[in-house]
Amino acid sequence: MRIGIFDSGLGGLTVLAALRRLLPAPDVLYLGDTARIPYGTRSAYTVVRYALRVASYLDDQGIDLLVVACNTATTHALPALQAAGARRGLPVVGVVEPGVEAALAALGASPTDRGVGVLGTVSTIEGAAYQRALTERAPGVRVHAVACPLFVPLVEEGWTDGPVPEAVADAYVAGLRNRIGTAILGCTHYPLLRPVLARALPGVTLVDSAEATAAAVAARLGEAGHGGAGRTTFFATDNPDRFREVGGRFLGAPVAAVDWVDLPEARDPWRTAGTPPAGIGG
Amino acid sequence: MRIGIFDSGLGGLTVLAALRRLLPAPDVLYLGDTARIPYGTRSAYTVVRYALRVASYLDDQGIDLLVVACNTATTHALPALQAAGARRGLPVVGVVEPGVEAALAALGASPTDRGVGVLGTVSTIEGAAYQRALTERAPGVRVHAVACPLFVPLVEEGWTDGPVPEAVADAYVAGLRNRIGTAILGCTHYPLLRPVLARALPGVTLVDSAEATAAAVAARLGEAGHGGAGRTTFFATDNPDRFREVGGRFLGAPVAAVDWVDLPEARDPWRTAGTPPAGIGG
Repeated sequence: MRIGIFDSGLGGLTVLAALRRLLPAPDVLYLGDTARIPYGTRSAYTVVRYALRVASYLDDQGIDLLVVACNTATTHALPALQAAGARRGLPVVGVVEPGVEAALAALGASPTDRGVGVLGTVSTIEGAAYQRALTERAPGVRVHAVACPLFVPLVEEGWTDGPVPEAVADAYVAGLRNRIGTAILGCTHYPLLRPVLARALPGVTLVDSAEATAAAVAARLGEAGHGGAGRTTFFATDNPDRFREVGGRFLGAPVAAVDWVDLPEARDPWRTAGTPPAGIGG
Repeated sequence: MRIGIFDSGLGGLTVLAALRRLLPAPDVLYLGDTARIPYGTRSAYTVVRYALRVASYLDDQGIDLLVVACNTATTHALPALQAAGARRGLPVVGVVEPGVEAALAALGASPTDRGVGVLGTVSTIEGAAYQRALTERAPGVRVHAVACPLFVPLVEEGWTDGPVPEAVADAYVAGLRNRIGTAILGCTHYPLLRPVLARALPGVTLVDSAEATAAAVAARLGEAGHGGAGRTTFFATDNPDRFREVGGRFLGAPVAAVDWVDLPEARDPWRTAGTPPAGIGG
C-alpha cells in the first residue's frame, strides 16, 4: 500500500501526521510544491493546473491512493483530480468533505452554535466549496467565511506566536465573535495557529480537517491500509533543505531527508484542457 | 524604443512609475509573473529559471532594453540575464546597482550615518548582492541586512497601514534603530510601506531604487529614450483582473487592461543549464 499526499508546501504535513497516528504501515510519498507556493492567492485555473501536474508526477511514482492535503487544491481541483484518477483507477481524497463532516458533528444547539466560521485562503474562500457543502447538508447553519491571506506566510515563516500573529488573527476574526460556535481551520497551515486562534475566538470549537481526513482515508482503505513497509519519502520542488528544517514543526517529528524534484509536464489523463476561461482573473 | 520590465508581481510598477516620470515616450511592456509570485522565498536556482523564462518571453515580443524591476531576480539572475542578453544584443538593467549608488550618495558623516540597513526578501538577503556592492564601494560602511518576509504578502494584500504592518515593521527593524543613518528598501514592494517604515526608523533616510533605476535607464538610453509612442502594455501570468484592480496603487495611475499570458519554455539563449546545484536548498 502506497499513498501519495501533496500540498503547496509544509501545511499538508499536519495531515500526514494525523494519518500516521491511524495508519503506520503504508508507504507514503509526500510532495510539497514549494516552487509554486502559495496556492491560496492564485486563480482557480492556475491551481487546477498545478495540482494536476503534481498528481501526474505522484501517479508516475506508483501510488494506490492520492490525498489532496491542501484546501485550496481540494476546493478547485478535486473534481478534475477525481475524474483523471478514475481513468487510472486511483482514488483521490480531499480535505473539504471530511472537514465539513467534522464541523457538523461538533455543532451545538444554541443560535450562536448554529453559526460556523470558515477560515481559509483567498482562493479557498472565493471557491466557496466549504460554504456550499455546509449549507447543503445543514440548511439551518449560518456560514461566515473569512479569507485570511497572511496566515500562510506567517506559518511558513514560523511566526505562530506573539504580538504579530495575534494582531493578524484579531484583524481577521474579531467580527466572528459571538456569532459562531464552531470555526473550520480551512487550510492545512492553520493548525499551527491554533493557540492564537483559540485566544482570538474564546469559547469557539476549532475544527481542523487533518484528523477527519486521516479517518476518511483509513475508512476508505479498510484492511489494505495496514499493508506496507511504513516508509515516508519527502519531495519538494524548491528549497528541500528548508523543508527538512522547518517541516518537523508541522509533522511533530523530524524530517530525515527531502529530495528536490523538477516536475515534468503533466501526462494524460492529468493534462488540463487547453485554454483558460475568460474569468481566470476572478 | 521599446522597454521590457518585469517583476514577480506588482512591486515593479513602482519602477515603471518612476521611469514614466523621466521617459514618457518609449513603449513599455510590463510583465508580472503572478503565477509564480513570490520570488523572495525561493532558491537562487529557481529564481534564475523563472527570470530567464520571463526574459525569453519579453525578448520574443521585441524589446530594446530589459529592466529587472525585482530585487530578488536582480540579486540572483542578473549575471545570467546579462550573459544571455549580450548574445541577443539586449542590454539588461537591474535594481541593485542603482539602489547602492543612491544609498552611498545619501550617506552622512557621523558614525551612525556610516551604518546602512538593507531590507529585503529572504532570498535577496541570502544572495547578499547589496551587502557585497556596499562594502566593495564604501569599505568603511557597516551593513545591517534584515530579511522581512512578511512585507511582500502585506503589500500584495494592500495592508500597508494600521497596527498589523506597524507591528511587523517594528519586529523587523527595531534592532536597527540608532545603528543606521540610511536604509535601502531592497524590494520594489517596500516603497508602499514607506510611511510605516519612516515611523519605525525615525531620522533614517529611506532609499528606494525605483528612482535611481529609472535614472540609470534614462542615462543608458540617451537620445533614444525619447522615441516611441508612449504605449504601456501589461501582462500577468495569473489573476490579470486582480492585477488591474490593485496595480493602480503601485503605479499611481489606473491600469487600463492586463493580458493573461502563459509563459512558454525559455528559448535559447535564455535556457538554464541542466541540473540544479547540490546547494539548491541553501
